[in-house]
Amino acid sequence: MASLDDLFYPKSLAIVGASTSPLNFGSGFFTIAMEELGYEGKVYYINPKHVGELINGEKIIGSLDEVEGPIDVVYSCIRASLVPELVRQCVRRGDKFIIVFTSGFSELLTNEAIALENELRSIIRGSSTRIVGPNCLGPYNPSMGVGWNTGISEPILKKGNVAFASQSGGHASTLLRIAAGRAIYFTLGLSFGNQIDLNSLDALEYFAQNQDTEVIALYMEDTGSAKGSDFFKALKKITPKKPVIIWKGGQTESGARAAASHTGAMSGSFNMWRSMTKQAGSMIVRNGDEFWDAIHLLATLPKNKWRICKNLGLLIPGGGHSVEGTDAFTQFGFNVPVLTRETQDKIANILPSVNTSVKNPIDLGASGMLETVFFKTLKFMAEDPNVDLVINFQPIDWIAMGEAQFVGVGYSRYAARSYGRLVKKLEKPFIQLSPIFNFDKKTAQVFSTFIEILRQKGIPHFTSMRRLAVALSHLNEYVQFLKHDKK
Amino acid sequence: MASLDDLFYPKSLAIVGASTSPLNFGSGFFTIAMEELGYEGKVYYINPKHVGELINGEKIIGSLDEVEGPIDVVYSCIRASLVPELVRQCVRRGDKFIIVFTSGFSELLTNEAIALENELRSIIRGSSTRIVGPNCLGPYNPSMGVGWNTGISEPILKKGNVAFASQSGGHASTLLRIAAGRAIYFTLGLSFGNQIDLNSLDALEYFAQNQDTEVIALYMEDTGSAKGSDFFKALKKITPKKPVIIWKGGQTESGARAAASHTGAMSGSFNMWRSMTKQAGSMIVRNGDEFWDAIHLLATLPKNKWRICKNLGLLIPGGGHSVEGTDAFTQFGFNVPVLTRETQDKIANILPSVNTSVKNPIDLGASGMLETVFFKTLKFMAEDPNVDLVINFQPIDWIAMGEAQFVGVGYSRYAARSYGRLVKKLEKPFIQLSPIFNFDKKTAQVFSTFIEILRQKGIPHFTSMRRLAVALSHLNEYVQFLKHDKK
Repeated sequence: MASLDDLFYPKSLAIVGASTSPLNFGSGFFTIAMEELGYEGKVYYINPKHVGELINGEKIIGSLDEVEGPIDVVYSCIRASLVPELVRQCVRRGDKFIIVFTSGFSELLTNEAIALENELRSIIRGSSTRIVGPNCLGPYNPSMGVGWNTGISEPILKKGNVAFASQSGGHASTLLRIAAGRAIYFTLGLSFGNQIDLNSLDALEYFAQNQDTEVIALYMEDTGSAKGSDFFKALKKITPKKPVIIWKGGQTESGARAAASHTGAMSGSFNMWRSMTKQAGSMIVRNGDEFWDAIHLLATLPKNKWRICKNLGLLIPGGGHSVEGTDAFTQFGFNVPVLTRETQDKIANILPSVNTSVKNPIDLGASGMLETVFFKTLKFMAEDPNVDLVINFQPIDWIAMGEAQFVGVGYSRYAARSYGRLVKKLEKPFIQLSPIFNFDKKTAQVFSTFIEILRQKGIPHFTSMRRLAVALSHLNEYVQFLKHDKK
Repeated sequence: MASLDDLFYPKSLAIVGASTSPLNFGSGFFTIAMEELGYEGKVYYINPKHVGELINGEKIIGSLDEVEGPIDVVYSCIRASLVPELVRQCVRRGDKFIIVFTSGFSELLTNEAIALENELRSIIRGSSTRIVGPNCLGPYNPSMGVGWNTGISEPILKKGNVAFASQSGGHASTLLRIAAGRAIYFTLGLSFGNQIDLNSLDALEYFAQNQDTEVIALYMEDTGSAKGSDFFKALKKITPKKPVIIWKGGQTESGARAAASHTGAMSGSFNMWRSMTKQAGSMIVRNGDEFWDAIHLLATLPKNKWRICKNLGLLIPGGGHSVEGTDAFTQFGFNVPVLTRETQDKIANILPSVNTSVKNPIDLGASGMLETVFFKTLKFMAEDPNVDLVINFQPIDWIAMGEAQFVGVGYSRYAARSYGRLVKKLEKPFIQLSPIFNFDKKTAQVFSTFIEILRQKGIPHFTSMRRLAVALSHLNEYVQFLKHDKK
């Protein structure tokens, strides 16, 4: 059987049903992507109706059989009824992986479609050919230039530390799309659809042994062709080494119904899922925001700073925001403890003016504009024994305003780097809380520069108090699991 | 006693402690704002140390006493210890309102500061002069060009339908800042700080009788100098006519501590607050996001479409997002009912391709690109008796992508106007759910055009399923209250 290396690091690809129109739904996703992502292996474009025409400078051929020797990854972008014949051909030729983009299988919930899917299963039985999907987008590997482009995903080529797999092609694409705004970078990814052969367990185990992958993220509606018990067993082995963040789709009865007509998934009881995945030490999230946030937090915060964070030190300019932050974090079970007398005195001593609060949340008033006061305060707060974690509240709009009106171009860069210098000196985690109040062009520009530098410095950023609180809860549970697991 | 008309529609202002530096913390907020907002009444700049120098082309004078006759609104931007003397002067002169921007009063929680605040109270007793604050930014009235500019608030001059009052100057400023991104426009606003004289009850009653105000929004830590029972009594009278959205700061013990050192507030039990405000028919929210969302929903959705929305019709491209939407709304107590056989057939009949789902959520697959199919489907869904409300999921990134790559400049405008034409024909509410996956310049630009047209057409927009679910819950509770109240 083919190693998944051949799937993620293919030397040759074929796109069956390749269209000369880049707008073609299906094959267009892959023909565009291979060109744009710069895939350097051999690509065969196959379509008997367009033989000799050009795609990406390559002549279209009529059949896989014109290619000598097996192909690593074959994409099927043809009608469902034609797929069994193609799979038979792949099996005969010994092609290693066939990505069945084509949908119209068990997710239709009709007897015919389910039978068609079963036929695919039986065709590959005993062969060395493996099916990914159907109803999927296949592998994503930025280092190889392998992936897809649905017009909504922005391929990000930078080398990362997160591997993802998703039963939903849409969620996989959204994850790529959202990555820039959360400064998330990927090692590998996989959209695996209905999982009739290659499944969640295969992806999990492959990612676990991938050296560059530090965080594993899965969107799943069910375990597909993997047995649930095998999946949980593997999960339990992997979580002490790498965090696994799971977004389970189909948590409610109606959601399960939607999942069934999405990937033919048998969602099972969410409560059972929840308790099993938690017991196995994975983080289980309820929606996209939680998913992206947990990935970002774990992928950005350096491992040596993963710790239980219950007692928060908050630096928040303005009384109203201080009250909001205290309410928000407290409602999620966090403490905002009064700082020690010593810390309060240290901070009060460097404050030249009144209209401030030094207990926690700290509000520096107008003195917050004085850089030395600001950074010293953050440091003093981080050194306070009552505090596990420092959170710095600074709407991105204020930084954009600083850049536009006061301090000048480059301020966002300068500010982010200054935080970088600070965190080097801190043992405790430091998190930037920068809500976006006004979503305008200037702010968008400043934002991307700012968060990218923060990421490089190991500083996670959040745009919402509530979302930060939820992500921290996941971190806390995971660290708790790691501690318990070590005993 | 002065009518609040003189506060919100002042013929003359004075800024005491006016600085020639626009960066001066305090007076700068007001001197810049009056110029930028285009206030056309008379402004007196007062500072004995800078007599004869110019601010906004006006000569600084040495004292209020050089002005003949009473001034409508005097701003105090001088040290706390000097404020009593200024208030005495205002009382003597018969000035109508004094906005005490100055902080350093009861929020310091020291005996001296509390005594100083009590002194202000006793000075105005029996006089016609009223104090706003201390520790506040005063009135905001876009039609008069009255307000403040803290460098983070963007004055929005368009005429609106929302009046706000806030115990926090920061939250008042954030509300102005956030307004553009939520397409919220204001009639009047007030930052009232510690509320030692003019208070939440005054603001509530004034807004209630303001003809252009359709929605009232309050951020409160306590009722200030108003008796709680009076406030609740007034609230009960007003809510059947206008929705009142209240964000209560200091909901937790730690939050209450923060509120005390913010505005000297006595937060009281949040449970009691919650039950009393709910009983009085107001919407009570827990944080900024909820506040802005509820304001946006009530201010945008036309009154004749306010109805109980429990059964949602979802149009969501992509199986993964469909599952997420179904899970998310169901978890908040909403239903995503299967559409009637008739509706399903109507939609199936116009669908040229497979890979679709017509039960609810509806996924049009590739056919969603066909405009007639898309809009007809929305209409059929809205006509289904099982559905109370139609939600259209379309990430703003897809619209930006359409504008940039496929359909051309103007697509966002065109799309928004097409929705406008559709909703004219619909009795039921229609809500646009457009998450922002990638926060880039192009998206930012498209976003602002798009949501502004939607607002004009009476279509609320949301960027998060969870946040929409929370806002709809508030609407439902309010409509329930209105129904019950009528009986």
